[in-house]
Amino acid sequence: MHALLIIAHGSRRAESNEEIKALTAQVAMRANKHFDLVDCAFLELAAPLIPDGVNSLVERGATSIVVVPYFLAKGAHVRDDIPEAVALAQAAHPDITITVSNYFGAADIVPDALTELAIAAAHP
Amino acid sequence: MHALLIIAHGSRRAESNEEIKALTAQVAMRANKHFDLVDCAFLELAAPLIPDGVNSLVERGATSIVVVPYFLAKGAHVRDDIPEAVALAQAAHPDITITVSNYFGAADIVPDALTELAIAAAHP
Repeated sequence: MHALLIIAHGSRRAESNEEIKALTAQVAMRANKHFDLVDCAFLELAAPLIPDGVNSLVERGATSIVVVPYFLAKGAHVRDDIPEAVALAQAAHPDITITVSNYFGAADIVPDALTELAIAAAHP
Repeated sequence: MHALLIIAHGSRRAESNEEIKALTAQVAMRANKHFDLVDCAFLELAAPLIPDGVNSLVERGATSIVVVPYFLAKGAHVRDDIPEAVALAQAAHPDITITVSNYFGAADIVPDALTELAIAAAHP
């Protein structure tokens, strides 16, 4: 079973974490031909944390997991913290294939999306 | 003259700020039918800060400025800090129309973009 795990930073504000869960549900609908399981986890400040998110997917039958860092910049979280957490999860589940995608801010579509948002704001 | 100002958080890492400048250049190419001037500014930690970014656009002839917060979540920066900085800039330039768009994470296209990134990572 193929799984997708969206990793967000996590916030002390419950609303921000709920935003991520709502986004995850939207992605799940769009990606259901490619992923049997779609969930989110947080680097810090909110549950589930990355190890718990991976464990939960494995318990539900995931055999491969694509991890997508939902971050805009290649800061320490993207460069160090997420790969480290994923490496630990991989060591705990050696039979599962875990792949980390590029972070969201590097996606080719981001300049288009930002342009679209700006133009919409200029012509309300 | 219509101007677009992309607001990012700003980082102590020069590379992260350079990433924003490169993204701004990509948006400028895409949005050139809608905006005569496109620039970026930072909430903190990097130059130009928001007041300097607005001043620079006004000096270059901007009569209207669309401000796009390049943030993923509706945290305190999006809810409070950016509107406050923009209100001060608006007060300093009462003849200029300054509009703040929704923040990037709320853009309709974000779930599509995130889905595309995840699918690409699953089928490399």
